[in-house]
Amino acid sequence: MDTKKYTINFRIWIESNHEKLLGKGRVELLERIQKTGSISNAAKEMKMSYRQAWQMVNEINDRAKQPIVVKKLGGKMGGGATVTKEGEDLILKYYDIINRLNNFIQDECGFL
Amino acid sequence: MDTKKYTINFRIWIESNHEKLLGKGRVELLERIQKTGSISNAAKEMKMSYRQAWQMVNEINDRAKQPIVVKKLGGKMGGGATVTKEGEDLILKYYDIINRLNNFIQDECGFL
Repeated sequence: MDTKKYTINFRIWIESNHEKLLGKGRVELLERIQKTGSISNAAKEMKMSYRQAWQMVNEINDRAKQPIVVKKLGGKMGGGATVTKEGEDLILKYYDIINRLNNFIQDECGFL
Repeated sequence: MDTKKYTINFRIWIESNHEKLLGKGRVELLERIQKTGSISNAAKEMKMSYRQAWQMVNEINDRAKQPIVVKKLGGKMGGGATVTKEGEDLILKYYDIINRLNNFIQDECGFL
């Protein structure tokens, strides 16, 4: 008897004008910026270079309808960064879509 | 006025006991095996090494409930390979799921 079980797995990402805006890695970066208050700390946690993280943040901001990360240069803590309300909303929507797709797949794709 | 448009994109893959069985690249390999009747020709078309393609086919066969690719060694044409009925069914299901998810996203995820 064959006991192998087939299931469906997926990844989603949000695009802006058909360019990648937010996927798993970028959501993780934003969440770590939220948590640590800084792009460089977030980068460290993800074992990315600071430069790479900055580029990613710039790309996200350029492609988004409104800024997603606001950088604060200088100051007592040597600068920092926060995720905007628009960014938090997008992250919530990203997870919401994943949940909806998981439910849909469970309900409608059991024919494997 | 900001004319950027957010959309959702995704990739799916079928897993067997939580290991990858079939995704975009593997489906393409199977389709090329179907078309060319050989793993080596399919590999060439995809600019994969023959070894890589064989390993992929072996992994697919090992993980599937039933064989997906049947290899015919030797013979007039120096061997060949065909995709089984089970394999064809799985490919159809793969595309069916993509279509269903596309429809679902269009219908239910327009809140971006």
